[in-house]
Amino acid sequence: MTKQQNFTEKTVRRIKSGGESLVEQDALAVEEPLEIRLGFNESGKAKHKSVSITMRTPGDDFELAAGFLFTEGIIKSADQINKIKHCGIPAKDGGFNNTVRVDLRSDVAIDFKRLERHFYTSSSCGVCGKTSIEALQTGVCSLAEHSSPVFASETIHRLPEILRSFQNVFDRTGGLHAAALFNTAGEMESLREDVGRHNAVDKLIGTQFLASKTPVSDKLLLVSGRASFELVQKALMAGIPILAAVGAPSSLAVELAGEYGMTLLGFVRDNRFNIYCGAERIEGQKTVKKGESVKFEKA
Amino acid sequence: MTKQQNFTEKTVRRIKSGGESLVEQDALAVEEPLEIRLGFNESGKAKHKSVSITMRTPGDDFELAAGFLFTEGIIKSADQINKIKHCGIPAKDGGFNNTVRVDLRSDVAIDFKRLERHFYTSSSCGVCGKTSIEALQTGVCSLAEHSSPVFASETIHRLPEILRSFQNVFDRTGGLHAAALFNTAGEMESLREDVGRHNAVDKLIGTQFLASKTPVSDKLLLVSGRASFELVQKALMAGIPILAAVGAPSSLAVELAGEYGMTLLGFVRDNRFNIYCGAERIEGQKTVKKGESVKFEKA
Repeated sequence: MTKQQNFTEKTVRRIKSGGESLVEQDALAVEEPLEIRLGFNESGKAKHKSVSITMRTPGDDFELAAGFLFTEGIIKSADQINKIKHCGIPAKDGGFNNTVRVDLRSDVAIDFKRLERHFYTSSSCGVCGKTSIEALQTGVCSLAEHSSPVFASETIHRLPEILRSFQNVFDRTGGLHAAALFNTAGEMESLREDVGRHNAVDKLIGTQFLASKTPVSDKLLLVSGRASFELVQKALMAGIPILAAVGAPSSLAVELAGEYGMTLLGFVRDNRFNIYCGAERIEGQKTVKKGESVKFEKA
Repeated sequence: MTKQQNFTEKTVRRIKSGGESLVEQDALAVEEPLEIRLGFNESGKAKHKSVSITMRTPGDDFELAAGFLFTEGIIKSADQINKIKHCGIPAKDGGFNNTVRVDLRSDVAIDFKRLERHFYTSSSCGVCGKTSIEALQTGVCSLAEHSSPVFASETIHRLPEILRSFQNVFDRTGGLHAAALFNTAGEMESLREDVGRHNAVDKLIGTQFLASKTPVSDKLLLVSGRASFELVQKALMAGIPILAAVGAPSSLAVELAGEYGMTLLGFVRDNRFNIYCGAERIEGQKTVKKGESVKFEKA
């Protein structure tokens, strides 16, 4: 893994109220495209296909590639990978190497046709949230039965501040999304940052995947932004039982999390949070039943 | 255009500090997939290709489809479009119609091969920010010469509050990104919201495009989040000379904006903002030259 600088300097003019302006250096989050190529390298004859181009912050490229392939359901285990390397020629000006090649073991079967269309397309002229959710049923199993770490509310309240304290070190740009894994004691075990929130999650999960530590069945995943369908899907693929977002969840994120028994928390900030589903993993909380008439209730 | 509800209700459990919990209704931003199909419908024989699936908030689907096709460089003018309609069968439970079909006029030539790979891939095994920027050169012209609206700093300071005041009406979910066009008097002329920030911008630009109002050479585009390469690209395609973001810009966003003479503002909030390039469109500001040694300077 090559460590690359994830910010760059740029002269900017800062404007304040009253027209005061100041010319100084500013740190910018680096955004560069990454092409992920997948295939085989048999007896020196390489045969690869471009499967994704994502705008990412350089660094942890191998983890990003592995995490993407795993959370999209394309590969299942780390031992299917023979080698991951940068390929292509880095830019002459010392720029980033923006192509990663994943060589699979020769006995791994990959459905390249599946890659040609995004996996939640249906074959007919029609697509909906329901089919998106149904399309996931291969490869994802419900979290409800086999994993139940329980987090105390007080622990959850502390997580955003812990995340932020580490972001102060890594992020001088204000432009990076963060994703982090926490244990039930509220300790942060891993953190990844990226200009793209799905990339931050892929890097985080990819690190666990390459170390054969998936499913991550006893941890909570905290993301600095909002919880979308895509992030819930990625967490599910990794077997993570709790997804907590500093921002709001979308309708489909809540639906998908509910369908698979995941605990989904939103607006985790300022000593409060919302439980959208899976309340049994939060200490002292019972499951919220549909149509429950209770309006006010003490824990 | 069909207006659809962009939020849905869900029972949640709100947890406050000290363990107090409250079961109540919460509004969620709706997220559903939209498939965009493009092609021809000649003498009743429809021939279309799926060109994109995006997770979007239902509503303004035609504008989103048109804006996407325009900002990706696939179509050039509104009169190339014969008809836009929803196709497929809406879900039985009254769900959203998630497929849009764009019928082109029979004399329009579309390079479907271009659609198969994302347009900033290079043909060799190598991709970088530089090639991404070079790939845009077809279809985009520099903004430097032909459009120069000038905005006063005091006007810019007011924009986030205006945006927010409209978001209070439309957005009860905390989960929607906003994109809005402002004139030099600081009046908001158009606003679109979506769970995806690129979708909000595509909806906004698509509305202008379908009304044959592109290039939008005298307006400022304000986005509620961060400024990425992709958003600068979309604004450039629409000829918008100023992109202002409430959040941070990325390195490649600044590079692309600089290359094409666009004015890029970041951190537009709390009565301050940063000018990354194109200072000549902000009243009383001069262009920031590289290596400029001035550290403090009154406007």
